[in-house]
Amino acid sequence: MLLDTHDLKTIKVGLVGLGTVGKGTLEVLCRNQAEIIRRAGVKIVVTHIASRDVQKTQSIIDNMQSCVQKPKVHANAIEVANADIDVLVELIGGCTIAKDVIFQAIKNQKHIVTANKALIANHGKEIFELAAKNNVLVVFEAAVAGGVPIIKALREGLSANHIHWLAGIVNGTTNFILSEMDQKGLNFEDVLKEAQALGYAESDPTFDIEGIDAGHKTSIMASLAFGIPIQFDKAYIEGITKIQSCDMAYANELGYKIKLLGIAKNSSNGIELRIHPALLPKEHILANVNGAMNAVMVSGDAVGQTLYYGKGAGSEPTASAVIADLVDVVRDINNHSLGRVPPLAFQNDALINTPVLDISEINTRYYLRLKVADKAGTMAIITSALAQQNISIRAVLQKEQQNKSQIDIIILTDIAKENDVNNAVEYINQKINPQDIVKIRLELL
Amino acid sequence: MLLDTHDLKTIKVGLVGLGTVGKGTLEVLCRNQAEIIRRAGVKIVVTHIASRDVQKTQSIIDNMQSCVQKPKVHANAIEVANADIDVLVELIGGCTIAKDVIFQAIKNQKHIVTANKALIANHGKEIFELAAKNNVLVVFEAAVAGGVPIIKALREGLSANHIHWLAGIVNGTTNFILSEMDQKGLNFEDVLKEAQALGYAESDPTFDIEGIDAGHKTSIMASLAFGIPIQFDKAYIEGITKIQSCDMAYANELGYKIKLLGIAKNSSNGIELRIHPALLPKEHILANVNGAMNAVMVSGDAVGQTLYYGKGAGSEPTASAVIADLVDVVRDINNHSLGRVPPLAFQNDALINTPVLDISEINTRYYLRLKVADKAGTMAIITSALAQQNISIRAVLQKEQQNKSQIDIIILTDIAKENDVNNAVEYINQKINPQDIVKIRLELL
Repeated sequence: MLLDTHDLKTIKVGLVGLGTVGKGTLEVLCRNQAEIIRRAGVKIVVTHIASRDVQKTQSIIDNMQSCVQKPKVHANAIEVANADIDVLVELIGGCTIAKDVIFQAIKNQKHIVTANKALIANHGKEIFELAAKNNVLVVFEAAVAGGVPIIKALREGLSANHIHWLAGIVNGTTNFILSEMDQKGLNFEDVLKEAQALGYAESDPTFDIEGIDAGHKTSIMASLAFGIPIQFDKAYIEGITKIQSCDMAYANELGYKIKLLGIAKNSSNGIELRIHPALLPKEHILANVNGAMNAVMVSGDAVGQTLYYGKGAGSEPTASAVIADLVDVVRDINNHSLGRVPPLAFQNDALINTPVLDISEINTRYYLRLKVADKAGTMAIITSALAQQNISIRAVLQKEQQNKSQIDIIILTDIAKENDVNNAVEYINQKINPQDIVKIRLELL
Repeated sequence: MLLDTHDLKTIKVGLVGLGTVGKGTLEVLCRNQAEIIRRAGVKIVVTHIASRDVQKTQSIIDNMQSCVQKPKVHANAIEVANADIDVLVELIGGCTIAKDVIFQAIKNQKHIVTANKALIANHGKEIFELAAKNNVLVVFEAAVAGGVPIIKALREGLSANHIHWLAGIVNGTTNFILSEMDQKGLNFEDVLKEAQALGYAESDPTFDIEGIDAGHKTSIMASLAFGIPIQFDKAYIEGITKIQSCDMAYANELGYKIKLLGIAKNSSNGIELRIHPALLPKEHILANVNGAMNAVMVSGDAVGQTLYYGKGAGSEPTASAVIADLVDVVRDINNHSLGRVPPLAFQNDALINTPVLDISEINTRYYLRLKVADKAGTMAIITSALAQQNISIRAVLQKEQQNKSQIDIIILTDIAKENDVNNAVEYINQKINPQDIVKIRLELL
């Protein structure tokens, strides 16, 4: 340590929420304090903590050897928002208490660091407006892809570009489930149970498996990439609960992997904002992101395709993003440069309200699986239904099966409008009433 | 466009060097001007350009339709350093004229944006000192991995971390050559000729194929990651010219790919700073970075392993980084926050002069290929030579060969000290004098 730490300015941080990420943040801030000082030139100290169970929190802090300056513990998070702090770190999550605490802290002119994607996706507009009025920063690197600095890349690293599209694997739980289904040939339900046992999935996994969490994150990234308001309410969201192990196997046989993708495209007639399972060519780098890892691919007109990859969740990876944000805020406090980078990458008055396209308007390729009675003429009905809508067929897979009464027919289409595909599917349903028609989008990126 | 661009502040840029990257920078700055204004809130205009052939330069600019405000063209780069500009963008390269121009511009209190890795790696210290004295910024995102914002990730995105190591494929030419050798089974010399014909390699390819360019970049990244001075002169550098197609094939058979890696490790007894070909397990994400693509993996104590991937060279990818730096500089000019982030990520007085280890001191795994006479006792001599140095053998490959007079023996060792491996090799040389002993390091990362 060459810097004399005695004369250093101290930035006081209030931390609300001492769950997994909260503990990680406190631990890393204390453990790496010397190195963080060498970078920031300032001491960052957590002086106040709020957590429901005060006794438990107190004992966690007492037992944390790296944490020398012990913060004061509060049961009520609002007390931290009212305390003598410079920055409030919100790690409660959700849109109830977290929202109240953040609003209170902003009104008290505290800067905000948050990992709360749901809150930013649903209430970002109000929060940023209130923050601008009170001249404070609200930063949220930890809200997307854990410790991977994707928000910084979108806001600053790629600022030269007209960004065409981004596509991300931004939910570790679903990526773990899909990877396990793929590698072990297991069913969704069985892998979900395994994921819950391992702590990779919550006891109520709805937000993850239904794609809502990925939807929050993708809506935030779309805003930063294209200079549009956050439009989570207009995103098309489809989870992974209907993916069957047979779809994994058929996809594999055809040269594809199935991933839950968050896709945002800046197309000429509007914004595509859609979160759904998708087939990706096996050799594509995103198809090789496995387990609980996250990755986001961003394509810009100048830079071409870039990829950002790392652990998308967990205690210390998320803490890494929280603290990077803290250091950024501290630098802006120290240099009186609070307006340096606008919260959504584009100047607040330069956001453009480009419409988000309805899912029926998008164009992509499709995987269709039809479980049908094995009768003469079935394939003719299916193929003519597609032909009527001008949809080209790129691949067909039908295997000889032992149970001759029902067979699986797999079709990969060329690029088609979703609406046309839906029309074809409806026609097939009317004509031959198959037991199942599974439609999964196929992305070439 | 919601912003009224008439009242906007204009930042005047002088551009020296109108080669591939220079042209790309001018083109992207003009083409994306509206979008860049929406981000930066400021107009960035190139007002002066220097390039040797004034006439040719003038005609390039005249034909660039997106470039409305035509810059003044100079034959002498020093004139641009002396012109009425706010920022000088240096895209000449090398350590002669470029250095003079940058020094002159800094003395004139112009900020510097450069893509010049050789200059930063060799003269960074003087340049940053002079810049500090003159209160100007020197930024160099474009010096490493083209448009991939890896410098920003190291300086800001990962600031919470004690960074353990980084490993990068940061030279597109050599990665293209190795990928082609691997995929087509060709020799180094033939692929080099192909690369030269395609424009992926220079007519004098020394800097690339001997690892010097990767050495510049890795030395810069090591400094940013660990808070040490740039120590290019102490890096161990070994190129790819000795890699044979048979090594590619043997590596493949054993489950590995060969890549030119720039490795920097922050180990307990010193810094490892080494650029050399290395075997990587086939399934490792870096082993799957092919062609002219670049990727850097960074491992931090909190974040774990993260990866940054994209085009490492070329006109517009590099321009993307140059312009991102310009926007950053413009933001600091506008907010009077010039000292916000120190040039080498750590505060200038907090750099620690940790020694760089000699290559003989490092510990890693090794691939050894020995071309030996097919005599009884040969394998015994080789294996006992390794045993004498306490080096464990992890795999041996020896094939029945038609030409029985000479055979290839391949050995993969466990982790060993390089010095011990060298001793074993020397002993084998003395005892059986093989035609060749090829030693390639093997990294598990």
